[in-house]
Amino acid sequence: MEIEVKFRVDFNSLRAVIEALGASFVREEVQEDVYFSIPLPELLRVRRIPNLGKTFLTYKRIADPGRNEEFDELEVEVSDFETTVEILKRLGYKEDVIVRKRRLVYRLNRVTFELSEVEGLGGFLDIEVISDDVAEAKREIWEVARKLGLSEKDVEPRLYQELIRERT
Amino acid sequence: MEIEVKFRVDFNSLRAVIEALGASFVREEVQEDVYFSIPLPELLRVRRIPNLGKTFLTYKRIADPGRNEEFDELEVEVSDFETTVEILKRLGYKEDVIVRKRRLVYRLNRVTFELSEVEGLGGFLDIEVISDDVAEAKREIWEVARKLGLSEKDVEPRLYQELIRERT
Repeated sequence: MEIEVKFRVDFNSLRAVIEALGASFVREEVQEDVYFSIPLPELLRVRRIPNLGKTFLTYKRIADPGRNEEFDELEVEVSDFETTVEILKRLGYKEDVIVRKRRLVYRLNRVTFELSEVEGLGGFLDIEVISDDVAEAKREIWEVARKLGLSEKDVEPRLYQELIRERT
Repeated sequence: MEIEVKFRVDFNSLRAVIEALGASFVREEVQEDVYFSIPLPELLRVRRIPNLGKTFLTYKRIADPGRNEEFDELEVEVSDFETTVEILKRLGYKEDVIVRKRRLVYRLNRVTFELSEVEGLGGFLDIEVISDDVAEAKREIWEVARKLGLSEKDVEPRLYQELIRERT
């Protein structure tokens, strides 16, 4: 299970705070996410990462709809973005929302930080732990979140694609 | 467009005839094909090729249902067989038929020969040309088919998964 909490943040100031905390920089990704029209709590996405030359097909099921912090995720790398999108279209799925972002990934022990500048939406930080122990994962997430100066009022429970859809 | 004609053959004697024709050996593949339950004329398949360590996700639409010689094909390589199968199951597709075969691939100019020993079904030869000119492709296919000693009576119009399903 992928456990993550999303916070609204200022990209540059959080970057400095994460680095000061001692987290290791893992990689930078430019992400172009195409979400297909399947009903929540399921998500179907093709993610292109042009700066790494990689594309992923991802299925997620939200285990806590509304809060959107617990995800059952299945992902494979695929060899071609356009062909994968076209296969899904042929199968009857429609392109729903496209989310574009620049993301810096950091790691501190079991915790992954995904600091993103999302096109049209601003800065966000996803703090993520992969674990089957949801309570323990959330404890770890909130422990570092507090160290970064984040609190419950900074949480953004909506999905990126929901935020994009509300905006348009 | 993928144009191909499938013939019932004796694997070993056809192998000798294809090699005598001057076709170049391309590769040997052990193929494990999982077909998912979508209605014809569409096909949805995950193919594992264990001896090459590769897996492909393939969508096909049969342009000439019943004859099954003209296919509109979309294919991507994927990083993991089990995860891809699981994603399709989560999306609601059911495993329909599994086809296992050993295949030798040969090439002569634009023509590809796929000589297969299919588990439970015997020997088959698919003669294939990728082209948007169906008539010209079929002319090329039949020209080499005749050189291999094959005729209309050797044609097998049914799909492998149909043959497997009829058998069980």
